[in-house]
Amino acid sequence: MMKDSASRVYEDAIVVDGLIISKWDGPLFKEMQQAGLTAANCTCSVWENFGDTVDNIVQWNQWLRDYADHIVKAESVADIRQAKAAGKTAIILGMQNTSAFEDKVGYVEILKTLGVGIAQMTYNTQNWVGSGCYESRDSGLSDFGRDIVAEMNRVGMLCDLSHVGPKTSRDVIDASSAPVAYSHCLPSGLKSHPRNKSDEELRYIVDKGGFVGVTMFPPFLEKGGNADISDYVAAMDYVINIIGEDAVGIGTDFTQGYGEAFFNWLNHDKGSGRALTTFGEVINPKGFRQIRDFPNIADAMSKAGWGDAKIEKVLGRNWVDLLERVWL
Amino acid sequence: MMKDSASRVYEDAIVVDGLIISKWDGPLFKEMQQAGLTAANCTCSVWENFGDTVDNIVQWNQWLRDYADHIVKAESVADIRQAKAAGKTAIILGMQNTSAFEDKVGYVEILKTLGVGIAQMTYNTQNWVGSGCYESRDSGLSDFGRDIVAEMNRVGMLCDLSHVGPKTSRDVIDASSAPVAYSHCLPSGLKSHPRNKSDEELRYIVDKGGFVGVTMFPPFLEKGGNADISDYVAAMDYVINIIGEDAVGIGTDFTQGYGEAFFNWLNHDKGSGRALTTFGEVINPKGFRQIRDFPNIADAMSKAGWGDAKIEKVLGRNWVDLLERVWL
Repeated sequence: MMKDSASRVYEDAIVVDGLIISKWDGPLFKEMQQAGLTAANCTCSVWENFGDTVDNIVQWNQWLRDYADHIVKAESVADIRQAKAAGKTAIILGMQNTSAFEDKVGYVEILKTLGVGIAQMTYNTQNWVGSGCYESRDSGLSDFGRDIVAEMNRVGMLCDLSHVGPKTSRDVIDASSAPVAYSHCLPSGLKSHPRNKSDEELRYIVDKGGFVGVTMFPPFLEKGGNADISDYVAAMDYVINIIGEDAVGIGTDFTQGYGEAFFNWLNHDKGSGRALTTFGEVINPKGFRQIRDFPNIADAMSKAGWGDAKIEKVLGRNWVDLLERVWL
Repeated sequence: MMKDSASRVYEDAIVVDGLIISKWDGPLFKEMQQAGLTAANCTCSVWENFGDTVDNIVQWNQWLRDYADHIVKAESVADIRQAKAAGKTAIILGMQNTSAFEDKVGYVEILKTLGVGIAQMTYNTQNWVGSGCYESRDSGLSDFGRDIVAEMNRVGMLCDLSHVGPKTSRDVIDASSAPVAYSHCLPSGLKSHPRNKSDEELRYIVDKGGFVGVTMFPPFLEKGGNADISDYVAAMDYVINIIGEDAVGIGTDFTQGYGEAFFNWLNHDKGSGRALTTFGEVINPKGFRQIRDFPNIADAMSKAGWGDAKIEKVLGRNWVDLLERVWL
């Protein structure tokens, strides 16, 4: 039986997920590989300090050895292309916070050397760098934060702004000499939410050479837990209508395998402080419930009328082009 | 004026110092470069735990940027050869203890990734890995120590045994699948001292493919502070008579720039515990008092009747051959 065009595009494409924070284990790595994921930004730190983040990386080093049939480390775009050729998934270690840098600019280089290629400047609340999207007041990027951005630029680490406050985000976009990204966000034009980005914000980051990864995390979607994969593609199209099809990618925010305790840890300031928000039950869009459903996305794009070139770019080529400009 | 043969050999040679623990700063790095040192094992941890060692490496990263005209980082033999071509000194980060590994085998890979190419298994006293040369009882390599040796073998980090107890040393030599080294020691055949190695010990490590770097630290020399550079060359010849000229190199143990407080820290268990030994005033051999005297060593070797090939090997080629076999 002939394969349809979308399946062929998917099989040939470099497929990148700009944000996964699932419960890592062997079966999950195998699922990522079998789903045809070429690379993923895998969260290795949220509220952790430096030492605990290094301990997480020690665990990642062990996984990379134990599951070498499924995953490889991605420290360069060449690593991602080699993973595609080998049929494996390239792991980009990413942090969703700068808490691991603590008070030392020098830890940026240390963590980059250990494989961290992406760091979000704040996670929901204020830290030494700036403010988060759930913070009541956002006074923008701190002076220390400017030093961190400059150091991330120097060593080639992508600044992620998904959970960052609007003023801090704008300051980082202005301060950074390299392109920056919302790795996983949705447009507030479709649903008003502190985590979603306005048309103006989406335009601003891309005007400055930046990038937008589109998430499908149900609490931020118009239809919430009732959405299906076509709603996710429609959200991408909403973003593409604003910023074009060359600076957009996928950033699912898959939390596969985790339960309530993990969400409580994420949703409380610094893991155990005040509650920041409640999500209720997280039910991903129908047709894209789990990582194994990844190939469905090409089909849904095709059904939405996307041509092969547009599908290929949004599946991963745009992400790779961005990383090529940021990593050194 | 024609240069003499020894000066020409020195200028063309790769010159390696297997152990320097001097007070690092810009003028010292410049002195290393101007003295024609191609590479040096530079101590970045003695009693420090993991976090404090990483902080020392942060400082090294800063020095490597600030003094890039003088020094470069050595993570491979290719880096050492490039340093020679560029007329700079290649810095091998080395630890004189395994305290920085703490209780985590995974920290071996982390520190190797951050540039640590050599680690001494113990520093003078017992730790989780084994016993030191000043420990009253040496029960040999611990089971945890065996895991550490295996991991150092796996990631390509040289096991150094200079300050290690005799039984633990023998166990490491037997356990290691890669060659190991005394990076800086003297023969007890010339002076009996807990830090000096017997003829049998020198023979044993080299029989198993290992290496001996010869130090000139005065307290371990027969003539102490009255020695001159010819006594240092004579000590090398004593070692070479036992193990041949292919497994011997230099390991000065220069402590340049440091005073009493630093020696007190070194000489007390864990930096502040019981006193282990006293050195008195450290006066290096006449003619080899400071790093800037390094070129004199080739001349002294020549005066001792060494041929050019032997001089070149002991100056650094033997060290490079060893590192090529250990680093991956």
